[in-house]
Amino acid sequence: MTDRNRLIYLPLGGAGEIGMNCYVYGYGPQGAERLIVVDTGVAFPDMDGQPGVDLILPDIDWLAERADRIEGIFITHAHEDHVGALGHLWGRLRAPVYARKFTAIHAMRKMEEAGHDPLQVHVTGPYPAVIEAGPFKVQFAPVSHSIPEASALVIDTPEGRVVHSGDFKIDRNPVVGEPFDPEMWGQIAADGVRAFICDSTNVFSRHPGRSESQLPEPIGELVANAKGMVVATTFASNIARLKTLADAGTANGRTICLLGRAMKRMVAAGVESGVLTGFPATVSPEEASEIPRENLMLIVTGSQGERRAASAALSRGSYLGLELKEGDTFLFSSKTIPGNEVGVARIQNALAEKGVEIVDESAGFYHVSGHANRPDLEAMHDILRPQILIPNHGEFRHLREHARLALSKGMQGVVAANGSMVELSGNAPQIVEYHEVGRTYLDGSAFVGAFDGVIRDRMKLALNGVVFVALIVDEDDEILEDCWVALRGLPEVGNTGADLAEMIEEDLAALLPRLDAKTVDDDDKLEEAVKRVVRQVCMSEIGKKPEVTVLTSRLMAG
Amino acid sequence: MTDRNRLIYLPLGGAGEIGMNCYVYGYGPQGAERLIVVDTGVAFPDMDGQPGVDLILPDIDWLAERADRIEGIFITHAHEDHVGALGHLWGRLRAPVYARKFTAIHAMRKMEEAGHDPLQVHVTGPYPAVIEAGPFKVQFAPVSHSIPEASALVIDTPEGRVVHSGDFKIDRNPVVGEPFDPEMWGQIAADGVRAFICDSTNVFSRHPGRSESQLPEPIGELVANAKGMVVATTFASNIARLKTLADAGTANGRTICLLGRAMKRMVAAGVESGVLTGFPATVSPEEASEIPRENLMLIVTGSQGERRAASAALSRGSYLGLELKEGDTFLFSSKTIPGNEVGVARIQNALAEKGVEIVDESAGFYHVSGHANRPDLEAMHDILRPQILIPNHGEFRHLREHARLALSKGMQGVVAANGSMVELSGNAPQIVEYHEVGRTYLDGSAFVGAFDGVIRDRMKLALNGVVFVALIVDEDDEILEDCWVALRGLPEVGNTGADLAEMIEEDLAALLPRLDAKTVDDDDKLEEAVKRVVRQVCMSEIGKKPEVTVLTSRLMAG
Repeated sequence: MTDRNRLIYLPLGGAGEIGMNCYVYGYGPQGAERLIVVDTGVAFPDMDGQPGVDLILPDIDWLAERADRIEGIFITHAHEDHVGALGHLWGRLRAPVYARKFTAIHAMRKMEEAGHDPLQVHVTGPYPAVIEAGPFKVQFAPVSHSIPEASALVIDTPEGRVVHSGDFKIDRNPVVGEPFDPEMWGQIAADGVRAFICDSTNVFSRHPGRSESQLPEPIGELVANAKGMVVATTFASNIARLKTLADAGTANGRTICLLGRAMKRMVAAGVESGVLTGFPATVSPEEASEIPRENLMLIVTGSQGERRAASAALSRGSYLGLELKEGDTFLFSSKTIPGNEVGVARIQNALAEKGVEIVDESAGFYHVSGHANRPDLEAMHDILRPQILIPNHGEFRHLREHARLALSKGMQGVVAANGSMVELSGNAPQIVEYHEVGRTYLDGSAFVGAFDGVIRDRMKLALNGVVFVALIVDEDDEILEDCWVALRGLPEVGNTGADLAEMIEEDLAALLPRLDAKTVDDDDKLEEAVKRVVRQVCMSEIGKKPEVTVLTSRLMAG
Repeated sequence: MTDRNRLIYLPLGGAGEIGMNCYVYGYGPQGAERLIVVDTGVAFPDMDGQPGVDLILPDIDWLAERADRIEGIFITHAHEDHVGALGHLWGRLRAPVYARKFTAIHAMRKMEEAGHDPLQVHVTGPYPAVIEAGPFKVQFAPVSHSIPEASALVIDTPEGRVVHSGDFKIDRNPVVGEPFDPEMWGQIAADGVRAFICDSTNVFSRHPGRSESQLPEPIGELVANAKGMVVATTFASNIARLKTLADAGTANGRTICLLGRAMKRMVAAGVESGVLTGFPATVSPEEASEIPRENLMLIVTGSQGERRAASAALSRGSYLGLELKEGDTFLFSSKTIPGNEVGVARIQNALAEKGVEIVDESAGFYHVSGHANRPDLEAMHDILRPQILIPNHGEFRHLREHARLALSKGMQGVVAANGSMVELSGNAPQIVEYHEVGRTYLDGSAFVGAFDGVIRDRMKLALNGVVFVALIVDEDDEILEDCWVALRGLPEVGNTGADLAEMIEEDLAALLPRLDAKTVDDDDKLEEAVKRVVRQVCMSEIGKKPEVTVLTSRLMAG
């Protein structure tokens, strides 16, 4: 029984959250399955949960312990939540990476930046090209999304065909890149699909999705009617949108200037990979500043309110010689991702102070989603008719809703959050193992586990401030009465008007000589006694119990 | 010319943000105007901007310096962003407070909690009752909003009538409290309105507002069709909604249990003030736990995802003996305020893990806004036909849009953000003075200015972590080679695998003996030299430059 082959699916990131996608498929005897990895994405930290952290990466301990069993890493598309962790994680996986051209350009850069050989990334053609990876045969089936060359993976296994949707929508006219191809999907479905692992992002959106091709007309009208400078922001990776925006500019006699490193990099990758053709010539910011504002259109980074992006810089004042003013128009051709609302509003308010006309997606004309809405999810279910549907790419509520939808349509729907290993090869799919998976924080150049306490400690500092106390125990093991106190993140003066650090020093000077030798000799006991005094003073003076760190310098005789 | 009387308006909070409302009107010779204050509200801090802060209060330095000129404080309604700062600020203002009964109950509690005499709060009747306050005659004109007894202020001055809208919507059937009364507003407008200071929250919402009375039917249907326990959350102060929810429960054979202190307090205030009648009997959580779940309805606090509220507690597990499970229904009869999306999603995901059916406002049936949408703002403009319209209660983008709307309709629209004093008595309204106003943070029991650097320091600690270094300079002014290092919020081990604190101590031990006397004697220079070493070690070991605090214990010969 134990050497029976089985087909397994294990999400390590992206199932239970939107972001940080990383999924594993395996086939073989239990505990000796050969593995493939689908996507190595990042999530983005915020002040609320991960202050100071640079990136959030999936916890791949499970995979790294089984690195010798990995046959390949497949990247579905070039969004950061699918490819962003490749460079950071590859050193522990060391398997060949497969991606289509546009995606591979980004994957290679990630590898190079991390000091790995970019030639570990193999450029792959679309369906019906096949990559053999141990017991798996994998094909990249083009899907429409908000970035070129996004692909679902068609994974053939000895237990049947598995389709991993990646991020997708149904768009028959996506402006740039491959339209949704019902004929291809009909072929893929023809011999039966064992399991469909499917994007759940928009399962709560009940109206049919809209096509990218619905945007050029309203955006063109907006630009035609604009008086001053026009600035537009969107995700840099949305090459189709960049083209629509740029075309709207040139059609109305405007010269295009791209601002933001990601913006220029994405257009270059689009041209290099061949997916982007006919993009208008652009000018540098220096050249742009010489052009009358009514003949200029900027396409800029920062649609999510990022403080360091071009849109934020423009909202604050002059940036690279360009400055917005009354009568200019700023278009957010983008959705605000939950959590970014305040940052986006900050920029919009700063622009409003300058008298800039702000246009955003609330009107419903200037942005379409890159994910399949519920009716389109259902359309895809109906084409593939899988036996098993496993929702991914969603928070728990999305996974659950999508699984319920699947059940209601006669499929076997399974909710499998990060760490839940599902066996796909039995009579009915079931969770056969559960592996605790956390998240890994890239903090500077250090990798810190989400449960290590490091970041939690930083949050405590932010919430409570910190009092630092330096004590001296002399060569005779006597504690000095004098101690030294420093405050960080606390008011200097208490409610009685006295200096807070001095008050703490005075109260400690009263305490220290009274401590018995047992307390003085024991770091923990000494610290506890000192903390109690510090917290008492602070509670009475500022109504707050700060963090306290005690450093005891024990002088050695000699 | 200087002793010419003038009528002025000065927003100190709420104009340039949503929250923290505080407005001043004045009449008299320049610099000697008699003043009234409208509202003393708070805003709520978040980890992103004000970690650890308890409340954000308006900066009332300008007012406090002129406290002898304040004739009265008028509170339009009992929402925290209008009354929440009263107790904290009143000690610096010391003027009589006026409010209607329901509002006064809350205002009195704020005064008591802060140790002030609650009888400073005077209960006032609605229009046409008049309070004389120096040169002002003030009337509380009932408006519909999402809390009982919300009122606009009709302020008669020697320069004409000013209407301060407070928060309002146009609802002819608000379920609880006074419906919009066009006849009263016709009377108020009859003799002309000099200036209308008007709520701008929903100026971007282009559809007509919906009435509270549209909710009982869909909410009743939802409860009728629910199988297990029903839990509903909304703002506790929305008494009408509480009644609608509770009525829907009892009509479907469910007993009502209120969870959350604010919930019980608000219902009590509603009954005490007489605005709430016929609210069903409720049971305690202990009693509720004995009732079959299909006969129970909980109405709970925490619609904004607050971690300590009842909804969060229920999402985490058993709370006061009550536990949700598969098949129960949880209704968010509320809007998620921008910035709270992630907190609300956290609760919804935890509920989804329990198998609870989640229903929220996205369907558009179970919540209506308490603020006037654009068409209703226009209706109010058309009734009052003011010469001047000054938008308030909005971020800058709302104020600007509302002022543009006013201009387009032939009114004099003025954008006046916090600190901009507008003279209303000249030929045309204009900003005549600008006073820098900040925000005041209540941090524990201390008041901290937003620009004092205290909170900024806490954010730096959260972003960068902190290294503490204790140095000793002995009685001979010689620095000891040994030093002591503690880390907070940083990984203990660097990328080379060595203990980070020990590495710093070693590198400092190499540095310290080499320092010249001039550096050792000068705290700043010594600190600078130490910081340089600490940051070098950290950059190389963890790729991060932490905060560094150096404490030098200088031992005195003695």
